[in-house]
Amino acid sequence: MTFTPGTFWPAEQAAMTRALELAVTPGVPLGPNPRVGCVLLDDTGATVAEGYHRGAGTAHAEADALAHAGEAARGTTAVVTLEPCNHTGRTGPCSQALVAAGVRRVVFAQEDPNPVARGGADTLRAAGIEVESGLLAAEAREVNRVWTFATDHQRPFVTWKFATTLDGRSAAADGTSRWVSGTAARRDTHRLRALCDVMLVGTNTVAVDHPRLSVRDDDDQPLALQPLRVVMGERDLADHGLDLHLRTRDPVTALKELFARDRQHVFLEGGPTLAAAFLRAGLVDEIVTYVAPMLLGAGSAAVADLGISTIAGALRPTVTDITVLPGIEGEEPNIRLTMTPQGA
Amino acid sequence: MTFTPGTFWPAEQAAMTRALELAVTPGVPLGPNPRVGCVLLDDTGATVAEGYHRGAGTAHAEADALAHAGEAARGTTAVVTLEPCNHTGRTGPCSQALVAAGVRRVVFAQEDPNPVARGGADTLRAAGIEVESGLLAAEAREVNRVWTFATDHQRPFVTWKFATTLDGRSAAADGTSRWVSGTAARRDTHRLRALCDVMLVGTNTVAVDHPRLSVRDDDDQPLALQPLRVVMGERDLADHGLDLHLRTRDPVTALKELFARDRQHVFLEGGPTLAAAFLRAGLVDEIVTYVAPMLLGAGSAAVADLGISTIAGALRPTVTDITVLPGIEGEEPNIRLTMTPQGA
Ligand SMILES: NC(=O)c1ccc[n+]([C@@H]2O[C@H](COP(=O)([O-])OP(=O)(O)OC[C@H]3O[C@@H](n4cnc5c(N)ncnc54)[C@H](OP(=O)(O)O)[C@@H]3O)[C@@H](O)[C@H]2O)c1
Ligand SMILES: NC(=O)c1ccc[n+]([C@@H]2O[C@H](COP(=O)([O-])OP(=O)(O)OC[C@H]3O[C@@H](n4cnc5c(N)ncnc54)[C@H](OP(=O)(O)O)[C@@H]3O)[C@@H](O)[C@H]2O)c1
Repeated sequence: MTFTPGTFWPAEQAAMTRALELAVTPGVPLGPNPRVGCVLLDDTGATVAEGYHRGAGTAHAEADALAHAGEAARGTTAVVTLEPCNHTGRTGPCSQALVAAGVRRVVFAQEDPNPVARGGADTLRAAGIEVESGLLAAEAREVNRVWTFATDHQRPFVTWKFATTLDGRSAAADGTSRWVSGTAARRDTHRLRALCDVMLVGTNTVAVDHPRLSVRDDDDQPLALQPLRVVMGERDLADHGLDLHLRTRDPVTALKELFARDRQHVFLEGGPTLAAAFLRAGLVDEIVTYVAPMLLGAGSAAVADLGISTIAGALRPTVTDITVLPGIEGEEPNIRLTMTPQGA
Repeated sequence: MTFTPGTFWPAEQAAMTRALELAVTPGVPLGPNPRVGCVLLDDTGATVAEGYHRGAGTAHAEADALAHAGEAARGTTAVVTLEPCNHTGRTGPCSQALVAAGVRRVVFAQEDPNPVARGGADTLRAAGIEVESGLLAAEAREVNRVWTFATDHQRPFVTWKFATTLDGRSAAADGTSRWVSGTAARRDTHRLRALCDVMLVGTNTVAVDHPRLSVRDDDDQPLALQPLRVVMGERDLADHGLDLHLRTRDPVTALKELFARDRQHVFLEGGPTLAAAFLRAGLVDEIVTYVAPMLLGAGSAAVADLGISTIAGALRPTVTDITVLPGIEGEEPNIRLTMTPQGA
């Protein structure tokens, strides 16, 4: 077989599809690390071993596959969804491990955006290994969408969620708000919360609502792994009952602090004042809205003042998804909109 | 053939389906009359003639079919979507015409809810004609949904339409509102307006916006037939430019006046104050909302105070349809919700 640089064998394309499947193997706990899959192929294109990363502190996908292959790793092609890392963290650098195992060729999808970990491709090439990259790179970036964003921007990705009536109210005039959204929307919210590693609210929501901010399954049982529950604002809060109080009003400072704690995905749950502060700072990356077909005619607004005075200045996010959530047990349907603010 | 009372021949069922199609023949101008179709069958079940009503002042469906049949009408079964009328309006009573033509049997779908016109079935039976009713009655009522409602309730059916941002604003803080809805939603609104015979607004909307309230097609050309353009409220309006000023604040009085003018379907376009008055009076029969994925954070509310103070009192209409209107020319999609207020 002759090899043309910059091309991939059909067996490598199939193996990368398989490696992406391995990367998203269910059951891996959320954590600061990207999800990665790896397949080792012999020179007939047959699979020698597979591996994937099971979360912070466990073996990287390449090390997992090499361990399964043992001596059979020699002379193989490693197909991996992310550029092999080049640094010694909780585990040794994968680039070194691949060299040591005698791997002949490495094909990876996404370049490592992490300034600390990158450089693996260069190390491999310097050791005489053939290296190709970019195969299914977009798919690989999507698998680690939030991790890629956080690594690129050196701050967590922010999803702002709000629930509203058709006339833009988040609560009735007397402050009652249970429930604006229906059961289906509330369950859906818990599923989205479970994908984040921080839930963030303002001090006033804590003072008024004392929210538990726990993530529960469809049977209302708390999940084993919970996001960090954070309240933000300068006032003192006695017994807020959450995990962390960030005593600042600056969204930049808050996100910096959370990123330093290895957090990559903030689920911003309000209230309207805190959400408006993040919007005005351009620090909302995704908006998820649940619209309930209900009218109140009065009550607190779902969003506080954004400094917009005229229609031309309206915030017009790009809609990426609209889903109708059918009502459960006789309830009316709710509508979920997922949006990206312009420029985000 | 033997005949069992209360049953329908298969040919009659097929003929009623056809009569319903005839009833909704395109091109008939909107007007105060119901849409009706009629098919005459011979005793083998073959079609002898068809007819339909082409709007106020023209022949009723039965008369149209009888005219097409001529002498061949004798001995036929008339299959008609509405109980033949019994009164002399702009045309003579259809019950008499069917008797005179020698029709042997009449099958109709919907009973006439009109207290002035009903009684046709009794007249036919008294003349010795077999009469059966109720075949596809629900479908027939649906064809003339608004007419049936208006006749039953002796007032026009009221569709309240409003456009809102995701945060419940109908205009920005400086009063600008062009446009909250996208092009697709505005075109859709014109299509709905064209199905009504009244467009109604409050005096303040006229004072602020001077709306034309014309109905235009997708190419922005005005339609030949326009609904009556009505403004409601006690204040004097110089040069309102509309067709009628109802100098009252009472929704009951306004609807009575419009019904007396043969109007059956009011398209209530706001503003928020007038809409709230109709809602509070229980005089909204259908709600159509266009939700634009836009945030303003300030500006006038889409709905004025409804006297609701707590979440348990929220107005929770039943959703009959949710349609996503794809954006035109790079615009974002809008969502149309169609709802029925509880109890309406
Ligand atoms: N429908 C929904 O989805 C939803 C979700 C959550 C809450 N809610 C409702 O919202 C209401 C509370 O909302 P809220 O708007 O009053 O309070 P909030 O946004 O929860 O908290 C506002 C407070 O956060 C602090 N803060 C931190 N950073 C800030 C910044 N950059 N700018 C301004 N303030 C900042 C300030 O207090 P310090 O003085 O402590 O700095 C401020 O007073 C409750 O009634 C709750 O039920 C609704
Ligand atoms: N987004 C949308 O879909 C939409 C649609 C229409 C209008 N708008 C906006 O809404 C604004 C105007 O709304 P608005 O609420 O101020 O005015 P409005 O509802 O158009 O008119 C209110 C006036 O109607 C009269 N009225 C008649 N019957 C009434 C009743 N039963 N109860 C109370 N008032 C009654 C009163 O004036 P009298 O003293 O004359 O009796 C009252 O001041 C404008 O800025 C317009 O642009 C938005």
